[in-house]
Amino acid sequence: MLTLYYAPETCSLAAHIALIEAGAAYALKRLDIDAAEHRRPDYLAVNPKARVPALATPGGILTETPAILAFIAQTHPAARLAPIADPFAFAELQAFNLYLCATLHVAHAHRMRGHRWADDEAAIRAMQQKVPESVGACYALIEHEMLRGPWVMGEAYTVADPYLFTLARWLEADGVEPKRIPRVVEHRHRMAQRAAAKRALAEEEAP
Amino acid sequence: MLTLYYAPETCSLAAHIALIEAGAAYALKRLDIDAAEHRRPDYLAVNPKARVPALATPGGILTETPAILAFIAQTHPAARLAPIADPFAFAELQAFNLYLCATLHVAHAHRMRGHRWADDEAAIRAMQQKVPESVGACYALIEHEMLRGPWVMGEAYTVADPYLFTLARWLEADGVEPKRIPRVVEHRHRMAQRAAAKRALAEEEAP
Repeated sequence: MLTLYYAPETCSLAAHIALIEAGAAYALKRLDIDAAEHRRPDYLAVNPKARVPALATPGGILTETPAILAFIAQTHPAARLAPIADPFAFAELQAFNLYLCATLHVAHAHRMRGHRWADDEAAIRAMQQKVPESVGACYALIEHEMLRGPWVMGEAYTVADPYLFTLARWLEADGVEPKRIPRVVEHRHRMAQRAAAKRALAEEEAP
Repeated sequence: MLTLYYAPETCSLAAHIALIEAGAAYALKRLDIDAAEHRRPDYLAVNPKARVPALATPGGILTETPAILAFIAQTHPAARLAPIADPFAFAELQAFNLYLCATLHVAHAHRMRGHRWADDEAAIRAMQQKVPESVGACYALIEHEMLRGPWVMGEAYTVADPYLFTLARWLEADGVEPKRIPRVVEHRHRMAQRAAAKRALAEEEAP
């Protein structure tokens, strides 16, 4: 059994969808970020980074979305969620997920988590002002250079798809113009039609 | 043959050391970041993200340090640079590398690359001021929760070791007090003694 520690409206949705696509047996533990449950001692014992997602496995705790996504794919090979037998193709998939994690998500985080990188209120506002440009530049690169179509890596659906879907749900709030990135928006629509995405969102919205 | 696009004093050193530890056949292509060679059309054709490292392989180009490190380990299994047959242990290694990439390196980047996230000069200075605290918090977590010793993942040397070594070379410049993180500093010293680290640094310093 796997247990996913998640919070609604965060990047943990990607791992949640991937667990469903994998056909994994899983349980959910919901954290209320606004109530700072991710900073309580019981959760810090799970993940001292005080972030979601965390995945409790029989072997121990895993963190960091790209690492969790690769683990889900590798341990559920029948679901074919990653080209696990081809190191180059696997690395390409990982590089996509890394870009989402370390560049796109980081740019996005300057809208609501600026206090991580500055204390001054004016500086935090200056960071927020640049988010449409910095996040927009990431999506332009994804649109024109990275998203192969119909799925992120081409014909094969992989764990990169729920990850892009998860972050792309925030692009309007980040001030990015959807009309400039039609392929990203089409991908988001295609993902939203999948049963796994619908089920994950329903589970996260359940009381 | 593999070709590593690198720049001195950047995170590409991690992949460089890993190539040597793997016993890989490789060539180096040096980029001068100060001369903006990473933004020239010939390099953008290699890596449209305009970042180092990039690794040219017979199958195509790879980017993103954790993805490249996993690729080097998976394609050189005799070097035992990652627990590639154990998905959980592999994911733990990846989670460590992800933390370096998406949290520690990002915090560090606010010292010299603040223009990525704000245009205002005062905001960029405010980011720089917080670097000792934000980078210091990352190293405290690594010191107390993550670094197993003697190597990052314990008894086995892995690709996480050259990656931590690479970033830890910058900690004094980031304003972090080395005496507060003696295990990280010891690890850096242990890494600096390895032939692969010495050779990589010598190759990068060569004219």
